[in-house]
Amino acid sequence: MCNYVSRRTVLALGAVAAGEVLLGEALGGAPSRRRVVVWSEGTAPKTVYPKDINTAVAEGLAPLRGWQIVTATLADPEQGVAEESLQATDVLIWWGHVAHGEVRDEIVERVHHRVVLGGMGLIALHSGHFSKIFRKLMGTTCDLRWREIGEKERIWVVEPNHPIAAGLPPHFEIPHTEMYGERFDIPAPDALVFVSWFQGGDVFRSGCCFNRGIGRIFYFRPGHETFPIYHQPEVQRVIANACRWAAPADCPPTRFGQAVTPLEKC
Amino acid sequence: MCNYVSRRTVLALGAVAAGEVLLGEALGGAPSRRRVVVWSEGTAPKTVYPKDINTAVAEGLAPLRGWQIVTATLADPEQGVAEESLQATDVLIWWGHVAHGEVRDEIVERVHHRVVLGGMGLIALHSGHFSKIFRKLMGTTCDLRWREIGEKERIWVVEPNHPIAAGLPPHFEIPHTEMYGERFDIPAPDALVFVSWFQGGDVFRSGCCFNRGIGRIFYFRPGHETFPIYHQPEVQRVIANACRWAAPADCPPTRFGQAVTPLEKC
Amino acid sequence: MCNYVSRRTVLALGAVAAGEVLLGEALGGAPSRRRVVVWSEGTAPKTVYPKDINTAVAEGLAPLRGWQIVTATLADPEQGVAEESLQATDVLIWWGHVAHGEVRDEIVERVHHRVVLGGMGLIALHSGHFSKIFRKLMGTTCDLRWREIGEKERIWVVEPNHPIAAGLPPHFEIPHTEMYGERFDIPAPDALVFVSWFQGGDVFRSGCCFNRGIGRIFYFRPGHETFPIYHQPEVQRVIANACRWAAPADCPPTRFGQAVTPLEKC
Amino acid sequence: MCNYVSRRTVLALGAVAAGEVLLGEALGGAPSRRRVVVWSEGTAPKTVYPKDINTAVAEGLAPLRGWQIVTATLADPEQGVAEESLQATDVLIWWGHVAHGEVRDEIVERVHHRVVLGGMGLIALHSGHFSKIFRKLMGTTCDLRWREIGEKERIWVVEPNHPIAAGLPPHFEIPHTEMYGERFDIPAPDALVFVSWFQGGDVFRSGCCFNRGIGRIFYFRPGHETFPIYHQPEVQRVIANACRWAAPADCPPTRFGQAVTPLEKC
Repeated sequence: MCNYVSRRTVLALGAVAAGEVLLGEALGGAPSRRRVVVWSEGTAPKTVYPKDINTAVAEGLAPLRGWQIVTATLADPEQGVAEESLQATDVLIWWGHVAHGEVRDEIVERVHHRVVLGGMGLIALHSGHFSKIFRKLMGTTCDLRWREIGEKERIWVVEPNHPIAAGLPPHFEIPHTEMYGERFDIPAPDALVFVSWFQGGDVFRSGCCFNRGIGRIFYFRPGHETFPIYHQPEVQRVIANACRWAAPADCPPTRFGQAVTPLEKC
Repeated sequence: MCNYVSRRTVLALGAVAAGEVLLGEALGGAPSRRRVVVWSEGTAPKTVYPKDINTAVAEGLAPLRGWQIVTATLADPEQGVAEESLQATDVLIWWGHVAHGEVRDEIVERVHHRVVLGGMGLIALHSGHFSKIFRKLMGTTCDLRWREIGEKERIWVVEPNHPIAAGLPPHFEIPHTEMYGERFDIPAPDALVFVSWFQGGDVFRSGCCFNRGIGRIFYFRPGHETFPIYHQPEVQRVIANACRWAAPADCPPTRFGQAVTPLEKC
Repeated sequence: MCNYVSRRTVLALGAVAAGEVLLGEALGGAPSRRRVVVWSEGTAPKTVYPKDINTAVAEGLAPLRGWQIVTATLADPEQGVAEESLQATDVLIWWGHVAHGEVRDEIVERVHHRVVLGGMGLIALHSGHFSKIFRKLMGTTCDLRWREIGEKERIWVVEPNHPIAAGLPPHFEIPHTEMYGERFDIPAPDALVFVSWFQGGDVFRSGCCFNRGIGRIFYFRPGHETFPIYHQPEVQRVIANACRWAAPADCPPTRFGQAVTPLEKC
Repeated sequence: MCNYVSRRTVLALGAVAAGEVLLGEALGGAPSRRRVVVWSEGTAPKTVYPKDINTAVAEGLAPLRGWQIVTATLADPEQGVAEESLQATDVLIWWGHVAHGEVRDEIVERVHHRVVLGGMGLIALHSGHFSKIFRKLMGTTCDLRWREIGEKERIWVVEPNHPIAAGLPPHFEIPHTEMYGERFDIPAPDALVFVSWFQGGDVFRSGCCFNRGIGRIFYFRPGHETFPIYHQPEVQRVIANACRWAAPADCPPTRFGQAVTPLEKC
C-alpha cells in the first residue's frame, strides 16, 4: 500500500489530521504565491531571442502579478529541473526542439511524477510536442505534419468561455510561422480551445487541454525559434491564462493501494 | 446577421472599440462582485426546511466571501426569474420537484438564453434533473431510476483535481436519502467529478459538468426534501465550489451571422 | 414508473422474457435489414438538384448494399415523418434551410423521441444545423458565422480511425461552397472527426459525433443548395459511413422510473 | 519525413497507388478474417484456470464466428508477442498480474507501436491496469485502491447504446471478486461504458474506452485469478463485444513529417 501526497496538500494538512475534511477555509481568498518555471534548451538564434526563449516567455508573464517567474535551461545543474525546484513549482513551461534526446530519462520521470502525482501544471510549447515528457504524458507519438516557409497562421477560439481564452478576440494572426498540420497524433483533448488556419491550406488543433493524474497539461502550438512569436501580446496572454488554469488545485492526497477494511459489512 | 453580446462583456467593452483585444489588464485581480440566485419551488416540508430549500442552500454559501447571495421562489413575480435580475446574476441554483410543469416556457427560454449566450452558470440540484431548463440544455430526457426508502449514499470523488472537488475528502456519506440510479439519460458530461454508491445496490453519476454555449452547468445529485442534506458541510462545500467554477468567464461577445468580407483574398 | 422500450428491442425480445440476458446469439451475423430516410425541404434549385437534395443524397447511398433507401419531403403527409415510418427507420438524414420554421413542433417531438428513446440515428447536413430537431438535441443555439461567395473548402480528417472516416484520404476539397466559420455554438462533440479549412481564412468543426439518449447523431457541414456538393464521391462516402455508424445498437430497453425493491438489503 | 503505414492498409492499397482514395468498395461487405491473441502470464491457480486465463478467455470468444482465436503466454518465444504475430493480430487481449516487470521494454515498445501506428486493438483485463503497455498508453500511474475479501460486485451499464454493451442487461453481478475502487488514475475515458458497485462500499469505472493513435483500447475490470469470473457469460459477452469494437478500422496510412509543398499559394 502506498499513499501519494502532494507538496501543497502536505502543507495544507499541516495542522489537521490526515483524512480530515478541509471544509472550513474561506473560498474567496487568493491562493498562496504561485511559482512558474520557464524552461528552454538554449538553442534559439540570438538574433531573434537574445536571451533564449525561456526569458522571452518569462517576460510575457508580467501580468501574473504576485507570481514568481523563473527561467531554467538544459545546461543548468540537473538539466534545470532539480527535485527541490520541482517540488516548489506550480507550473512548468517547456520549449525544446533539437535537444529532446539530451534530456535524461530520470529527469523525465521526475517531471512526470510531479505532474501526475503532485498536480504541477505543464505547458508544452510548439516543438515541445515532441519532448519526452509530453509524449510520455500523452501515450501516443505526438507526431504531426510540418512545413517551414514562413506562412501566415490564424488562430480561432472555438471554446470562448474557457479560462485559457479569457480576454482574447475571436481570432488572431501570426504573420510568419512554421506550419504544423493535422493529423496531430494526440489523444482527443479534454478541451479543444484553439484551431489554427494556415495560409498553405492546413488546419491544426492548436490549443489542447488534458488532465493527467491530478496535473493539468496545456499544449499550445505557436512559436518557432526563427520568428518573434513569443513577443506577441495575444500569445503572451494565452500562456499567462494557461498558467492560471494549470496551477495545482486544492487537492487532498490521492490514496492508492490496499484498502484493508471495507466501509460496509461484507 | 446577428451579434449576441453578453452583459459582462458589454460592460467590459465600455471604454474600448468592439473587436479590440483586451490584453492589458492585470491577471491577478479579483473579478467584480459575483451574485448567486438560489431558486426553489417552496414545496419542501417545513419540518425539514422551515424557510424552504433556497434559504438552506443560500446559508451554506456563506464561505463565498464578497458574493451576493439571493433567494428566489416560484411564487415571486416573474416566477422569481425577472429579466433584470437574471442579467445581474452570475450563477443560478435550481431546485424543483413537484412544480416543474408550472414554470412557464417563456421563463425557461429566458434562463436558457442567459446561460447559453450570456454565460450565466446554472447548478441543478437533485430533482432539478427533471426541470424544464435542465432538460432543454441537455437535449435528452434526463430520466433515471429512483427509490425512496431512506438508504445510505456514499459519494466518491473520481476527478480529485477538479475545482468542484476542492477541499473534499476522497469520499463522504449521506446517511439517509432518496436513491437515484443509472441509467441516467444525459449526454456524457464534459467532466465527471462524483460517482455515488447506494446501499441498495445502485450507482449514479452524481456530479456532472457541462459547457453549453458560453455557460457552465453543474448537476449535483444530493438533496431530497425530506432529509436535511443541504445542511451537510460537504454538500455545502460542493455547491460553493460549483458557484466559483460556474461563474461567467471573461468572454468577449460571440459574433454569429454573416461575415461579409473574407479575411483572405478569394 | 415507466419503462421505455425501443422497437428493435421489443422485436428482439419477442421470444424471451423481459430482463433475460441476450447472450446466446452469434456475434458475427449481419443485422436485420436497415432503412434510411433522406429528408429535405424541396427548396433546392432545380438547376442543381432537379429531384431535390433528398434524391441526390439517396443516390449517393447506393454502396449501402442491402439497405432500403427512402426519400421524404416537407410536402409529404405528416411532413414526411409519419410515426409508423419513423418506427421503421434506422437512420434519418435531414437537410433543411429556409423552411425550418414550417416543421411542426409535434413532428420535432416525435423525431426527438425516436432518436433519444428508440435509438434511431440522425444525420444533420449543412444548414440542418439550424433545424429544430438538431437544436433540440444539442440544447444550444447551434449558431455560427457564414459567407456565401463560393470559396474553396478543404476538409481534414483529424480522427482517421473513426468509422465515419473509413476509406477517406487525409483531406479532400470542395471547389466552391458556402463558408461556415467558428465559433460554432454546439456542445463539445463526443468525437470530432473533420475540421474544415476555408479559402477566406476561416476554420470549422465539420464532422461532429454526439450520443443523445440511445441515439447517435452526426453533423456534417458540406452541402449547399447552389453547388453540386452531394454528387462528390468523398461527401457521399462520408454520409454512407455515417449511416452505418448511426444505425441503432443492439440495446435492451432502458428502464427508468421507480425501482421499488432494492437489490441489496437496506 | 516519414510515412507510417499500417499492415491492413498496405494490403488494402496493394492494387492502388498510395494516396488514391478508396471510395469504390461496397460498404456492406464483411472485413477480412480477424485474429485475436489472448495473452496471459501463466500464473493463475490451476484449480481455477487449469489452462491459464488466456485459454479461459479464448474459449469465451467462441461467438466470434469466423475469427481466429489464438493464445499466447510469457514463456513463449519473444514473450508471446513476436513481431510477425503482432503484425497479423487485430486485437490483443492482455492479462497480467505478478509478472508485469518481466515483460521486456522492447516488447512493450513493439506492442505500443502496433496499437498507435498500426491500429491493433488492445483489451486490458483486471490487473492488466498495471501492465507496462497499458500504463504507457495512458500516460498516468493507472493506480487504484483494492481489497481482496471475495465481496460481491454489480456492474452497471451507463452507456447502453455502446457497441461493447450490446446484448447486456442493465446490470449484472459477479458473486465474489477482488475489489478495485476509485480513485482510478486514468485519463478521462473517451467513453465510460460500465460503473461497478461493490458490497464493501466502493465504486469503480469498470469499462473504459480510449483511442490512442489509430488504435482502440478497452479496459475491463472484472477478473481475478482466484475466482472463475472469465467463465461468466456476461463477462465473455463483454470481451467478445470489445474485440469487435477494437478491431482496426479501414484507415489509410497516416502521413507525418515534412509537407514540403503547400496546398495553397503562399
